[in-house]
Amino acid sequence: MSNALPDGAKELLDRPEFATVATIGSDGQPQLSVVWVKHDGDDVLISTTTNRQKYRNIARDPRVSVLVFPKDKPYSYLEVRGTATMSEQGGRELIDEFNEKYHGVRPYPGDKGTDNVRVVVRITPDKVVFRG
Amino acid sequence: MSNALPDGAKELLDRPEFATVATIGSDGQPQLSVVWVKHDGDDVLISTTTNRQKYRNIARDPRVSVLVFPKDKPYSYLEVRGTATMSEQGGRELIDEFNEKYHGVRPYPGDKGTDNVRVVVRITPDKVVFRG
Repeated sequence: MSNALPDGAKELLDRPEFATVATIGSDGQPQLSVVWVKHDGDDVLISTTTNRQKYRNIARDPRVSVLVFPKDKPYSYLEVRGTATMSEQGGRELIDEFNEKYHGVRPYPGDKGTDNVRVVVRITPDKVVFRG
Repeated sequence: MSNALPDGAKELLDRPEFATVATIGSDGQPQLSVVWVKHDGDDVLISTTTNRQKYRNIARDPRVSVLVFPKDKPYSYLEVRGTATMSEQGGRELIDEFNEKYHGVRPYPGDKGTDNVRVVVRITPDKVVFRG
């Protein structure tokens, strides 16, 4: 375990694989959701909106873990345990970038007609476990 | 949200899809791993061994969450937040059953030559979120 992403982990995060993110609920129970994911150097980035449970959980307790495994190779995986910071800056750009990565199209259509405020969740690893 | 598994969730759990399980580490950080999964009525079952971090985490704090999504339909998912009990009884049978489910062969070969003690982790749902 280390706090840097090995090259194989970065390659995995460059692919349009779906990740699972764990946050901690107000009662201490872990909560899980499926997310789009990328890396920025050694940080892992996901997107959320300020009206989501995930946002409220991270605002209360920034300890977050992310796991991703290739859908065609499920015994390979990356787990990142880290500390998250959140910022509205770049939030719209990130979700549009994700929509292009996962669906080949910009912009992301899902927020249209909503008042969703998009947030960048930047997870700085404390521990990285990678089995390539 | 409810604490019963809808039929579609049971069908998902009957398929050889890989799940992600979250436990809580000694420092309160969520920890994630990829697991084989099935249901027994409304309970969700996974397997572990007594020498795994997951086992120690659940022994300390039985609050566990499990998420599974079909690899060909990642916007569909099941999240179960629940409370786990662990038992060595049936532990060997469960891992053999999983090996048949996921690889078509009994018994499970991975414990051969080890002193692994297999445990059934039975997760009784407190909350179920299913998007079919």
